[in-house]
Amino acid sequence: MTELTAPLLRPRFGVEDTGPDELAAATGRAALAATAVADAGAEVRRDWLERIADRIEEARADLRRIASIETRLPEQRLDVELDRTIRQLRFLGAEGVRAAGDEFLEEGFRRRTRPIGPVAVYAAGNFPFAFSVAGTDTASALAAGCPIVLKAHPGHPVTSATTAELIGDALTEAGAPEGTFAMVRGFDAGVRLVVDPAIRAGAFTGSQVGGRALFDAAAARPDPIPFYAELGSINPVVITRAALRARRNEIVSGFIDSFLLGMGQLCTKPGVVFLPEGHGLEPDLRAALRGRASRPMLSPSIAERFAERLGTAAAVTELVSEPGSAGTVLQTDLATFRATPALADEIFGPASLLVTVADDEETVDALASVDGALTATIHAEPEDGPLARRLVATAARLAGRIVWNGWPTGVQVIRSMQHGGPWPASTSPLHTSVGAFAVDRFRVPMVFQGVPDELVPVG
Amino acid sequence: MTELTAPLLRPRFGVEDTGPDELAAATGRAALAATAVADAGAEVRRDWLERIADRIEEARADLRRIASIETRLPEQRLDVELDRTIRQLRFLGAEGVRAAGDEFLEEGFRRRTRPIGPVAVYAAGNFPFAFSVAGTDTASALAAGCPIVLKAHPGHPVTSATTAELIGDALTEAGAPEGTFAMVRGFDAGVRLVVDPAIRAGAFTGSQVGGRALFDAAAARPDPIPFYAELGSINPVVITRAALRARRNEIVSGFIDSFLLGMGQLCTKPGVVFLPEGHGLEPDLRAALRGRASRPMLSPSIAERFAERLGTAAAVTELVSEPGSAGTVLQTDLATFRATPALADEIFGPASLLVTVADDEETVDALASVDGALTATIHAEPEDGPLARRLVATAARLAGRIVWNGWPTGVQVIRSMQHGGPWPASTSPLHTSVGAFAVDRFRVPMVFQGVPDELVPVG
Repeated sequence: MTELTAPLLRPRFGVEDTGPDELAAATGRAALAATAVADAGAEVRRDWLERIADRIEEARADLRRIASIETRLPEQRLDVELDRTIRQLRFLGAEGVRAAGDEFLEEGFRRRTRPIGPVAVYAAGNFPFAFSVAGTDTASALAAGCPIVLKAHPGHPVTSATTAELIGDALTEAGAPEGTFAMVRGFDAGVRLVVDPAIRAGAFTGSQVGGRALFDAAAARPDPIPFYAELGSINPVVITRAALRARRNEIVSGFIDSFLLGMGQLCTKPGVVFLPEGHGLEPDLRAALRGRASRPMLSPSIAERFAERLGTAAAVTELVSEPGSAGTVLQTDLATFRATPALADEIFGPASLLVTVADDEETVDALASVDGALTATIHAEPEDGPLARRLVATAARLAGRIVWNGWPTGVQVIRSMQHGGPWPASTSPLHTSVGAFAVDRFRVPMVFQGVPDELVPVG
Repeated sequence: MTELTAPLLRPRFGVEDTGPDELAAATGRAALAATAVADAGAEVRRDWLERIADRIEEARADLRRIASIETRLPEQRLDVELDRTIRQLRFLGAEGVRAAGDEFLEEGFRRRTRPIGPVAVYAAGNFPFAFSVAGTDTASALAAGCPIVLKAHPGHPVTSATTAELIGDALTEAGAPEGTFAMVRGFDAGVRLVVDPAIRAGAFTGSQVGGRALFDAAAARPDPIPFYAELGSINPVVITRAALRARRNEIVSGFIDSFLLGMGQLCTKPGVVFLPEGHGLEPDLRAALRGRASRPMLSPSIAERFAERLGTAAAVTELVSEPGSAGTVLQTDLATFRATPALADEIFGPASLLVTVADDEETVDALASVDGALTATIHAEPEDGPLARRLVATAARLAGRIVWNGWPTGVQVIRSMQHGGPWPASTSPLHTSVGAFAVDRFRVPMVFQGVPDELVPVG
């Protein structure tokens, strides 16, 4: 391994848990910085984000290497994630300018938005860049004009420290106010952060249990604050008989690619697939899995939990994949699926469950019975006619993103993205944590009535 | 009193409290209607809202008379409110079409919104039309494409029954699905409604205590739902020395008009006014109040509660108005105001508190110390220079609507309106309960990825 060039262990961002006093100091500085960060204006903040993106770009090789050691994810995958993270910082910087400029004018009235104030961001473990220290929540809150106190994920402490250093350096160089960004660590600090009086909103990507606990704490504050938690998801897939006939091989390989991506440790992994009884895909799936290499999971504890959850599911289902495969495919019928609520819970890791359905009616019913999800995928053909329409309509009631003849993994950072969905996919179905409108979560509308233009705050 | 022509006591909407079975039947019908109401499309729903508006227009004389008996509000004021309510129904119907048409297209992606599902609406007592059965929450949820289960306010039971009949008749005539609208009554039904599994969002206008209890219940559901509560507000006003010099008489009469409007029973009533020490307005205020007639409050219990709250405030402040005036003006200094947290609570009724400040610095500090509010008003002049800018910037941190050299009462139903604000003004600072964007509270964004255009649900 070559020498690391990034500044790894400067005192500004340590790897120790953050104590209550240090946390209060961080949120206090964020509160003091809020006005200056808001008044800096969106164009200036775009420059801050560009500089952060530049710094990450420069340190790319080190970041990739450190993150690979810490998360066991392959460097190649991390390189793609870094690309996305860098592009996302620049994209959201520009979207901050868009959001700050949005307004409605009527005679005597001017409605626009302003930054909500300091934001608590909770980093995820499975995307050490795109959903972590410099990820979508940080980028969108900063672009929106909000100071950030970030709770680091314990799964990649050095990656987090390094990224935080880069952000800190970029902000200092750009002349951003002291207190614009801080990072804290540890479970206790995370719990305290969401109820800190200085914090005006929270953003989280992670497990349902953790996200719900923080959401509950945010809602129970004397002054409740919005808490945008993007949680796990079962991401149902429906494959019609006609689609199987038309695209059997493509569906098999697409499915395997999608549920194995990142060793199944993605919130958009297809977790349950409804398909016709007697589909006969079992040998194709086994064959396709044979060529796939297994990789270690993010951490031993995640691997343990995966094995445990898989064991529970396997006890009531049939194993389709061969023992020792890179990924596990289970199968059951709709009656068993319905009778076993645990089968509808996300299994975080390389596993997916096939559920066979008897006819069109059962297909629609099966999809309709699924809880809120980030995505719902439909494989169908023109000859499916009214069935296809019913499936799309049903999917639109339960998911934030409806994928047609494709696969749910691979969330694009674009204007039209929606990454969220009804509970339990997220705590806030009206918002997205990825794409242009992620910025708008952190801007509060207000109307200036009769206020002279030169007095209306911008940014 | 002439004979009432409206159908008053048909069995469909009684005045008895709604039992648990009847409530479950209503929410069940709403759930069953949800797809059809969504798929009807926004143009068709606009027609429904137009027909409701027509029916209310036809029954206007009866509605005004019944409501005046029940609420003790003058018929003239209720006539103005009916105008606004009718206009609001038509306006929001059109905004529903706008919201359903909003979309972002990118190669292969189509992002749009869909109705969130059945909505629980809690009617307010102080606006028997504009914030009640056919008020802004009903109109915006229906325009958005959501069935509604409305909890009636107990303060105007016959007005509510009559309005509900008109809505029911208009919807039936228009061919809207059974279950599109239902009304329930009673405290227990209201509490059950927010946790009913069929309900996907809640909207409320009323007291902080009631709104918070329902918000807490919505957040504590196994599947939390958005709960948009618009609560009371202290609505601070700042008057600079220069403004007093320039517009003394206008300010006195404007203030009296504003805080007496609707006998001070408005959520936008100016409740606290910061103005310079030695302002000398006391005789002007007494003189202006002498010509004003007192009117009964909405109910004896509201009058009692007003007297009680006023007594508490009067004990630690100076009485400016003469005993027996239509409205009560109290006065204190900033130190007392700060030392007495109760003075910062809304007094629902015809009373307002003057708080004297020593200088510009204290003026800004005083405003900054106020809790989240629906509005903040600034009276200033060009010669105030930087002070004016600081006041507007401070106001923008605490209120949803910033009023310049005007008064906060009189919320206009326009595109640029913002009626909401940071807690405790509302539970959801990103949303408005009045104006065009009230509709958007009830529409969930989603993206259709690769879905053929003809399969994307509209409406």
